[in-house]
Amino acid sequence: MESDNYNDPAVMGGCSVPVRVNRKSKPDPTIVDVNGIRFGSKEVVIIAGPCSVENHEQLMETAKAVKSAGGMILRGGAFKPRSSPYNFQGLGEEGLKLLREARMKTGLPIVTEVMDTRMVELISGYTDILQIGSRNMQNYPLLKEVGMLRKPVLLKRGMMATIEEFLLAAEYILNQGNEQVILCERGIRTFETTTRNTLDLSAVPMLKHLSHLPVIIDPSHGTGHRWMVPPMAKAAVAAGADGLIMEVHYKPEEALCDGHQSLSPDEFTRLMIDLKKIAQAVGRDIC
Amino acid sequence: MESDNYNDPAVMGGCSVPVRVNRKSKPDPTIVDVNGIRFGSKEVVIIAGPCSVENHEQLMETAKAVKSAGGMILRGGAFKPRSSPYNFQGLGEEGLKLLREARMKTGLPIVTEVMDTRMVELISGYTDILQIGSRNMQNYPLLKEVGMLRKPVLLKRGMMATIEEFLLAAEYILNQGNEQVILCERGIRTFETTTRNTLDLSAVPMLKHLSHLPVIIDPSHGTGHRWMVPPMAKAAVAAGADGLIMEVHYKPEEALCDGHQSLSPDEFTRLMIDLKKIAQAVGRDIC
Amino acid sequence: MESDNYNDPAVMGGCSVPVRVNRKSKPDPTIVDVNGIRFGSKEVVIIAGPCSVENHEQLMETAKAVKSAGGMILRGGAFKPRSSPYNFQGLGEEGLKLLREARMKTGLPIVTEVMDTRMVELISGYTDILQIGSRNMQNYPLLKEVGMLRKPVLLKRGMMATIEEFLLAAEYILNQGNEQVILCERGIRTFETTTRNTLDLSAVPMLKHLSHLPVIIDPSHGTGHRWMVPPMAKAAVAAGADGLIMEVHYKPEEALCDGHQSLSPDEFTRLMIDLKKIAQAVGRDIC
Amino acid sequence: MESDNYNDPAVMGGCSVPVRVNRKSKPDPTIVDVNGIRFGSKEVVIIAGPCSVENHEQLMETAKAVKSAGGMILRGGAFKPRSSPYNFQGLGEEGLKLLREARMKTGLPIVTEVMDTRMVELISGYTDILQIGSRNMQNYPLLKEVGMLRKPVLLKRGMMATIEEFLLAAEYILNQGNEQVILCERGIRTFETTTRNTLDLSAVPMLKHLSHLPVIIDPSHGTGHRWMVPPMAKAAVAAGADGLIMEVHYKPEEALCDGHQSLSPDEFTRLMIDLKKIAQAVGRDIC
Repeated sequence: MESDNYNDPAVMGGCSVPVRVNRKSKPDPTIVDVNGIRFGSKEVVIIAGPCSVENHEQLMETAKAVKSAGGMILRGGAFKPRSSPYNFQGLGEEGLKLLREARMKTGLPIVTEVMDTRMVELISGYTDILQIGSRNMQNYPLLKEVGMLRKPVLLKRGMMATIEEFLLAAEYILNQGNEQVILCERGIRTFETTTRNTLDLSAVPMLKHLSHLPVIIDPSHGTGHRWMVPPMAKAAVAAGADGLIMEVHYKPEEALCDGHQSLSPDEFTRLMIDLKKIAQAVGRDIC
Repeated sequence: MESDNYNDPAVMGGCSVPVRVNRKSKPDPTIVDVNGIRFGSKEVVIIAGPCSVENHEQLMETAKAVKSAGGMILRGGAFKPRSSPYNFQGLGEEGLKLLREARMKTGLPIVTEVMDTRMVELISGYTDILQIGSRNMQNYPLLKEVGMLRKPVLLKRGMMATIEEFLLAAEYILNQGNEQVILCERGIRTFETTTRNTLDLSAVPMLKHLSHLPVIIDPSHGTGHRWMVPPMAKAAVAAGADGLIMEVHYKPEEALCDGHQSLSPDEFTRLMIDLKKIAQAVGRDIC
Repeated sequence: MESDNYNDPAVMGGCSVPVRVNRKSKPDPTIVDVNGIRFGSKEVVIIAGPCSVENHEQLMETAKAVKSAGGMILRGGAFKPRSSPYNFQGLGEEGLKLLREARMKTGLPIVTEVMDTRMVELISGYTDILQIGSRNMQNYPLLKEVGMLRKPVLLKRGMMATIEEFLLAAEYILNQGNEQVILCERGIRTFETTTRNTLDLSAVPMLKHLSHLPVIIDPSHGTGHRWMVPPMAKAAVAAGADGLIMEVHYKPEEALCDGHQSLSPDEFTRLMIDLKKIAQAVGRDIC
Repeated sequence: MESDNYNDPAVMGGCSVPVRVNRKSKPDPTIVDVNGIRFGSKEVVIIAGPCSVENHEQLMETAKAVKSAGGMILRGGAFKPRSSPYNFQGLGEEGLKLLREARMKTGLPIVTEVMDTRMVELISGYTDILQIGSRNMQNYPLLKEVGMLRKPVLLKRGMMATIEEFLLAAEYILNQGNEQVILCERGIRTFETTTRNTLDLSAVPMLKHLSHLPVIIDPSHGTGHRWMVPPMAKAAVAAGADGLIMEVHYKPEEALCDGHQSLSPDEFTRLMIDLKKIAQAVGRDIC
């Protein structure tokens, strides 16, 4: 099957793009439909919510704020990958139940992360979209496992993964029969230290040139600074992103993780207004 | 004097910003005025032109196309820094004379690069803005030399310079008394190989947060692909850039350098229309 | 527990080293004993073998060559993490059985990789050391799972992981009660393209300064070139490495993976002679 | 002339090596002879001295210590490239005069840096080897200027330069007729923050594979830590380096720059003893 790969000389280094994710083998964009919300269409999809689910009040209040500002999908971590074993690791299944409750109360579909092949079945029972995090982009058993589902997968780029490796990781999922994959650029690791990562917005046009899959941007992890989220979110939409995933917390200063990069409900509300103007300027919609 | 540095804890790593470029020591943005074109104002300034000056026809035709599409300043290299000694090194003073002629014919101010302390006087006699290229961002004798002029300097970020080092390089110029410095992000070097460099658009809000100097973006070198220039140019304006510098060539396929990343006059004309929409959406103007 | 972290100001950036891996909390080096072969002692341990187990002849012939040249432990992949789903993924349990046979025939202990929490029990029944590969360095469920065993773990540094993150990953294992961890530097990702990765030999003195755990080097993946393995292996021993892990194949030109970076038996035999001289020059032994 | 470049497919990415530095066009190693000290021969050359010349006592005491421990060439900066304009910039010509005096008193040849084309003539009147620093590796007018001399040039790799760019920079010097070029790896910039730079020791075998020029290592800038210099210096010699350049200061704790990475005379003396053992183990000499 390796001979089915397409080599694209129109990019530097002649990036080799595997067959199933390759735009040459499927010129029309793939639309990933989540309860009528369509990634890859004219619509720019906004996902928002807390880094992790902390408790009932935090999640319900944040979900209501996301909904009322026009957010379309709720994010929230129940099982958290943390660099240190001594950091908060998430509420586990209790967090999943809270996400289900928030979904019922607001109508917002849910995206949450899975890290372990053994948990795929459990988590997919609670969520609308399964997220594969940066650290697991090359966790091949996990990619194969979610590839066997028929449920949308949000695949985050590894913080030091090339575009080619990112597309090969997506290919693992498609190769198992699941074509509902959303690619997410969330910042790469460079020598620069003023930002948490370096948000590689050129990944948007590049991925859309090479692949038919939808591409979204995470400006929260991509910058690590709340005040940088609005300009980079606007830039992402201008560059042609199919969506955004952003951290919003009802009280950022009390967040158990990533508070410094989480928007408050007010900041999120103001940003939504600005994003609609940019979307319109590039011929897109934010409903 | 080192104790006059301001340390900014609002960014990762506590970036240390020297005094003269520091926004804390001068809260209002610096406006760099080039014949009435104002970098750092509400206006988004568009600089365009060929990588290098090749001959009379090439420069005059390209300059006319830039002018007619709404470009405001003409770029063009007469002395070219090239990785290999066997590549075209530019026309030298002959190129400067052609730039002067293009300036007279179109009214467009000129920006061209200086690489050698011994050439600063000669080149500054021909140009409106002196460019310091990426490879010379830490050429301190050259920075000091242009610091002694009273002429705008376009300082490009080194391809592996941190934000802190970039601001320290600018400080060398301001410290000699020349405050007319325009900062230009043009892509940094990372592990990614599908693009020539990784355009770090987060440098726009970060530099404007830390400094009062205007910030522009070079999406041509930042991506290395003609077809990526429009989306990244739009993203740059959405992120808050004060201007753009882009490679335009009247016949890109015949260019002696950088043809693959140069826009044709038609492409540039279409892009200008789109850029105006984005500028408007973020409350800026492109005249 | 997070407050038990030790911050080490004797390194740049004040690297924060967690408590269990920290040399300050256990000044004596940890010795990881594998059938009398002692990682972290005066002895420099040599691990060698093929990238993946391909068939009976390949493994037995390679194992004999490793044994006869003085190699102490046999490496070989049965479950292979490959960037593309279309590359050879390993023989699976059949490969484990061949490794067990090679172990019986040569007396060499075995190290092989585990990628999936569900496979830890199976693989640990066949192997003397469990390897966690680069791509799984931050696969926390997997780290916790091997942390619950009482069996040596060879933890490879992620190609994008900082020294601090590497030590935090090891802490996940120690925190579950398993202190038999061997750290392995195998090259990091940089902008340089002439080598597969950039082998960071300074990780040897740095990791041994910060932690009590043994540190070994993989010059095969670290360089990607067979002809670079000997000089870099010698450099690693001179820098103070506690061991080496190298790819050796009885017929490198026919290898299903990594043939270009695998030593032939003759090359490995010659290298062992040279390594003994270097070990002696730094007061170490290779038995 | 560009067609004279040799493309080497034996390295990743098919590194293109220009003709004059290329080993294929001159299979025998180039010997750079400095008063009978021969870079590129069986001998491993040791260069040592302070980061910058500070005053008479400092330089003379350090020079005597270098000489008595067996150092062969004295380094010391008179014109210093510093990231901040507010840091000590060197003594200038006064520093050159002190270097000349130290040369007379100890017999040690001198290496010092030149940053400005206008200073090449002055500095070359005082020094035995002209150093081009990392920040100026792509300062082409400067490379051409030292290329017109008939004096050895120590060319440091830019902290962001690929192997290919490094060799192209050397080609600029050889192309002007000066073949006495010594290549120096001094650490590259990566994401790792515990060390000042990442010392790329694989550059030693790679550069010697691609080029006939001698290659030396700077473990002081390469690590940024005094305590890391000895293991990395030993590793460099084991990897096949033709020499070392190290910072030694008679009172490191009082140094005006780089004290934290400078060896004391006692540390340097002990290291010289260890280096001789490693040199012998790889069939080289340190006289």
